[in-house]
Amino acid sequence: MATITELTVKDVRFPTSLEAHGSDAMHADPDYSCAYVIFKTDSKLEGHGLTFSLGRGNDLVCNSIKYMGRMVVGKKVSDIFDNFGIFWEKLVNDTQFRWLGPEKGVVHLATAGIVNALWDMWAKMEGKPLWKLLVDMEPEKLVSTMDFRYLSDALTPEEALAILKKNQSTKAEREKELLSKGYPAYTTSAGWLGYSEERIKKLCQEAMAEGFTKFKVKVGADLKDDIRRCRVIREQIGYDKVLMTDANQRWDVQQSIDWMKQLAEFKPLWIEEPTSPDDIMGHAAIAKALKPYGIGVATGEMCQNRVMFKQFIVEGAMQFCQIDSCRLGGVNEILVVLLMAYKYRVPVCPHGGGVGLCEYINHLCIFDYICVSASMENRVTEYVDHLHEHFKSPCVVKDGCYTVPKDPGYSAEMKEESLLEYEYPSGSVWKKLFAEGKFTPE
Amino acid sequence: MATITELTVKDVRFPTSLEAHGSDAMHADPDYSCAYVIFKTDSKLEGHGLTFSLGRGNDLVCNSIKYMGRMVVGKKVSDIFDNFGIFWEKLVNDTQFRWLGPEKGVVHLATAGIVNALWDMWAKMEGKPLWKLLVDMEPEKLVSTMDFRYLSDALTPEEALAILKKNQSTKAEREKELLSKGYPAYTTSAGWLGYSEERIKKLCQEAMAEGFTKFKVKVGADLKDDIRRCRVIREQIGYDKVLMTDANQRWDVQQSIDWMKQLAEFKPLWIEEPTSPDDIMGHAAIAKALKPYGIGVATGEMCQNRVMFKQFIVEGAMQFCQIDSCRLGGVNEILVVLLMAYKYRVPVCPHGGGVGLCEYINHLCIFDYICVSASMENRVTEYVDHLHEHFKSPCVVKDGCYTVPKDPGYSAEMKEESLLEYEYPSGSVWKKLFAEGKFTPE
Repeated sequence: MATITELTVKDVRFPTSLEAHGSDAMHADPDYSCAYVIFKTDSKLEGHGLTFSLGRGNDLVCNSIKYMGRMVVGKKVSDIFDNFGIFWEKLVNDTQFRWLGPEKGVVHLATAGIVNALWDMWAKMEGKPLWKLLVDMEPEKLVSTMDFRYLSDALTPEEALAILKKNQSTKAEREKELLSKGYPAYTTSAGWLGYSEERIKKLCQEAMAEGFTKFKVKVGADLKDDIRRCRVIREQIGYDKVLMTDANQRWDVQQSIDWMKQLAEFKPLWIEEPTSPDDIMGHAAIAKALKPYGIGVATGEMCQNRVMFKQFIVEGAMQFCQIDSCRLGGVNEILVVLLMAYKYRVPVCPHGGGVGLCEYINHLCIFDYICVSASMENRVTEYVDHLHEHFKSPCVVKDGCYTVPKDPGYSAEMKEESLLEYEYPSGSVWKKLFAEGKFTPE
Repeated sequence: MATITELTVKDVRFPTSLEAHGSDAMHADPDYSCAYVIFKTDSKLEGHGLTFSLGRGNDLVCNSIKYMGRMVVGKKVSDIFDNFGIFWEKLVNDTQFRWLGPEKGVVHLATAGIVNALWDMWAKMEGKPLWKLLVDMEPEKLVSTMDFRYLSDALTPEEALAILKKNQSTKAEREKELLSKGYPAYTTSAGWLGYSEERIKKLCQEAMAEGFTKFKVKVGADLKDDIRRCRVIREQIGYDKVLMTDANQRWDVQQSIDWMKQLAEFKPLWIEEPTSPDDIMGHAAIAKALKPYGIGVATGEMCQNRVMFKQFIVEGAMQFCQIDSCRLGGVNEILVVLLMAYKYRVPVCPHGGGVGLCEYINHLCIFDYICVSASMENRVTEYVDHLHEHFKSPCVVKDGCYTVPKDPGYSAEMKEESLLEYEYPSGSVWKKLFAEGKFTPE
């Protein structure tokens, strides 16, 4: 059995702020970035993984990975995968390091990078795409990868096992269905704050031509402008299609309620991140007030860990659960959140965008459908058409649906030339940008 | 008016793990450390501040401070102190950097280091200890230092102002009272998990001889051992004195309830950190279940920001509010938490220990008493007798009470020789420890 012998971490950044891609009410100028993790072994087996950030400070995450990676290097892969839940708990509970979180912010983003790379390795070891590794795994084994600490008041290992077993006999049907039809996606590409009206119209038309039926628009900076932009989009897509709104944490609680009442005429399915991502009871209050208008609350991309998800789910504070593949501590923690969401009947609609997030969540929603939810009702996965060209096995969306990945691994292995060009600050693209004066090295 | 011209950050660590100081159920071997911040100006004025950690990863906090410090260097001090609330909001909302939190973990610990140093500078500029700067400040000015974003459903600026104004006319009495009697402290020095029974007995006797009447014991690793140790302490201190228990996040929700029922006979005033610091509704459930036993829930040292405190306070999830001077983003954020706690009638009992925390919280509880709570009922401030010798103006506890600091500033300025000896990894103490093989450089 292979032993992990080496960890490499690369600070990879894309200068997306040059084009206002991804601009929203709180994040005007992101440079989509990732801490990129490579674990090598004493065999040919490797694991590649990443965790996402917006640029500045990405090096902090890289350094955190180097620290935590010491717990991985030198281990036999069997020592990790045979008791992955226990290993995961140790990884996030280093007796000194946990003060810096625990399980939140920089150190938990780092956890995601490490853990995602390990799952990539496991899937490659089995010669399967990650979703298929998960789907084929015995429920008992799956449950053994999860850490239930702090969750037992909402979900026990026994309940988790029962949920997974319930769907075993019908898995094959759903797998077949997905292989032929894919998993429904929605697009955010048309609705960024920084885009002009003409650009929005054009992007809506293009997206509809590509088969999309669900669209998200960023709101929260200016009410009049939001009304105008929602109207433009509704004029383009009509009322038979689905519109979602996203405020990116801009408002206080009452303000969220008041503002969204003004947008209710545009029939949004949800308001995403109306207020602080930490405000569980605030979200619950907003959800209650907006229920009569048919507007649900969606959140999760900045929800720091499973303990927060537990509360959001149990308290009725999220009607749509937007797991993030890099904010949570990798696949292990995501699995347990999928199960909690299922138990409390909250549909999971993963957060995409950035760099690599769409590649990851494609696997997660496939697993969710085949093994957990067994339903597509109110479920849809975000798709943003940025930066996929840097991956060896990029996600592919066809007719408004994610297609099922076939290559072994977790799909976030980057092309060597992309790593060379975009490594920060030494990559060729960055050297050129510094020389042209478009960026200043930090 | 002075301009801030330079930022220096030092990684300072103390090898406290050699003696099991500070060992608890989750943190077996802390090396008390701090990211130490010095802002210099174009005059003689300096600001010194720190933020605390347990050792490994302290460099991540230092590097985060260097990033965020760029928003400070080059500013006139008046630009900061004239609109400190607005400045604080900008500091925590860098459009790229906030993805790494927001306002939690590494980046928020960094915020504390920076902001604490700025308040030290402001107090020195005025030639006053920090508490006195706050006490003498006009209520309107105090309120202008706070950021109310995400809080308006619990506390508005107008309510904050009203609370501060209510106490204005009687401030002088309370200031005089504190100057003569000090602020009540409790000691944790006797109750660490790693200590032997004999050591506990000896430390209880010493603490009582020093005038302490309130004692805290660490629990949560083993129920039988907890019962035995609570009994030892109660035998030493009797039932007329106060005992508190602290589980350092060891349990799940139901486990917390069951375990504490077993310790109820020892009449603990509170159980501190029974479960995950992120589990607001879990703490609320524990508080409800333990109320009939007269046991309150205390938490806060790992409560990441004011939005979490808001929910803990409003939901009845903390009966004792344990602000941490370095976990929250410095004085500005602490002030608004003090006011929320007051409004909802939750006594504030700050978290001490580590390095520099006791120096800081002394100022905060003095301000709380004089300007906010105007009561000592159920209020007591943690004192741990470690590492005070490294400070130029260490806190002094006499007859079980913190004495009032007199020197200008926020009391966490370290001695030059301590900085030289304990800077990691280059300080003389660390070089010696590496040479002796007692530690391995990272």
